[in-house]
Amino acid sequence: MAKPAAPGLRIRRYAAGEWTDAPDAVVTEEPLQLLLDGKPLAVVMRTPGADIELALGLLFAEGIIRSAREVRGLRISAEAGETEDRVKIESVLVESNQVDVQLKAKPRRKPERSMLASSACGVCGTQMIEDLRRDLAVLPSGLLADPSILPGLVDRLRSGQGVFDRTGGLHAAGLFGMNGEVVALREDVGRHNAVDKVVGRMLLDDRLPASEMLLVVSGRAGYEIVQKSVGAGIPLLAAVGAPSSLAVALAREFNQTLVGFLRGDRFNVYSGAQRLTNR
Amino acid sequence: MAKPAAPGLRIRRYAAGEWTDAPDAVVTEEPLQLLLDGKPLAVVMRTPGADIELALGLLFAEGIIRSAREVRGLRISAEAGETEDRVKIESVLVESNQVDVQLKAKPRRKPERSMLASSACGVCGTQMIEDLRRDLAVLPSGLLADPSILPGLVDRLRSGQGVFDRTGGLHAAGLFGMNGEVVALREDVGRHNAVDKVVGRMLLDDRLPASEMLLVVSGRAGYEIVQKSVGAGIPLLAAVGAPSSLAVALAREFNQTLVGFLRGDRFNVYSGAQRLTNR
Repeated sequence: MAKPAAPGLRIRRYAAGEWTDAPDAVVTEEPLQLLLDGKPLAVVMRTPGADIELALGLLFAEGIIRSAREVRGLRISAEAGETEDRVKIESVLVESNQVDVQLKAKPRRKPERSMLASSACGVCGTQMIEDLRRDLAVLPSGLLADPSILPGLVDRLRSGQGVFDRTGGLHAAGLFGMNGEVVALREDVGRHNAVDKVVGRMLLDDRLPASEMLLVVSGRAGYEIVQKSVGAGIPLLAAVGAPSSLAVALAREFNQTLVGFLRGDRFNVYSGAQRLTNR
Repeated sequence: MAKPAAPGLRIRRYAAGEWTDAPDAVVTEEPLQLLLDGKPLAVVMRTPGADIELALGLLFAEGIIRSAREVRGLRISAEAGETEDRVKIESVLVESNQVDVQLKAKPRRKPERSMLASSACGVCGTQMIEDLRRDLAVLPSGLLADPSILPGLVDRLRSGQGVFDRTGGLHAAGLFGMNGEVVALREDVGRHNAVDKVVGRMLLDDRLPASEMLLVVSGRAGYEIVQKSVGAGIPLLAAVGAPSSLAVALAREFNQTLVGFLRGDRFNVYSGAQRLTNR
């Protein structure tokens, strides 16, 4: 991941009444301008790195694409209007603050302007309450997971996080196989972005729906995390933090196994416990 | 606050290899349809309660209003299209999922559709990177704060949080006076919402700019929290969690004192330390 932490910063530290000067690292948060076929779509506040995955994951989450094969190319600019090298979708490592996703055909869903914005925004642009529930498919029930693998996944998530311990400011999302093996780990100042990045990776690898994978997120599970992961076909979502009421309702509606408070050797199951208990 | 936690929920709990059934409470997250002069403006995912404050705080943060006096009335509907009682702005305790803010004149700033959305969305609708930096005023330097009052504010924030300990899922924002006295405490599934609610309260009480107050937030300090608090004229922002790089940059640009990692008797100062050290 590029530039996860901003370069050295001098801060003042207060402890038990005493002041000291100290160097510090903070997590990098920068705007990414996302365009679709040359037209501005949104500004996303994110931690730079894996921007292609982020862009594709977002377009997937919003129903604009269903496969990386629908993408004709990507245009990346280091500064808006400066360089405009067309790049191959498989080989992008450029740092940039602008990504233009060019589709082969019309978008599957009319993109709503401004719908993808902020580092933690998942339902932006969804104008009316009636629109909130997207046409997601109910997840199949067959898969069974061993509950004893879940506690270890948080450690793997944390050890895979390069800068978490240094800045304390990054969220992480990890996709794991059914035996706990790491499929993809991504970090971002926004938890939604981290999820979009791992889903974008699966898009690039043509591994969606991720019907035999588990998603672990470092913070809370809100509605949008459930929405994005159900959309990617992920049958089990586990959060280190608390779920919200709407997250629970949505997980139950779409037959997703929702785990919260995954800490130490404990966790709570809010939905779809049958995948873990086989009952 | 109304309905901060959803009614009893049965969950399965896993601990050290054993399963138990248990009741549980999760934080309520529900969509609020926000309208401006009868036109749909956005759907905000929020924890119900203080919806008027939230609506006004959001409109203030987006530059659409500068004072509660610019509001002619509020129309609240329990269900869209059902009741439409016009209510006085001072006396709203209705639970609802739709709020229509009616202005006396045209909005100060053209509202961009969809710009206010998601429980954690602060810069939604800001289409271009160039638009991100709003016309915020640099905060005056005069005010001095005693650093020793900061550590106690987190305890006051937590003790003022009714449901935090029960659900573990709510963010809190607290406005305090210069001697640490509580001015307003609000909770929400979204930290941005909690900030919008306290700012909305100040709008209703005609106490903006809040130039002699401190804002404490329970989680991280991202760019938008700085943006919203600078907009409200708050000279000192303290977060229990980490700040982001853009939060630090923005706080420095607008001369806001930014404190992070406010835990126990310690904290870090990322910007504007002179207000705390008098140097």
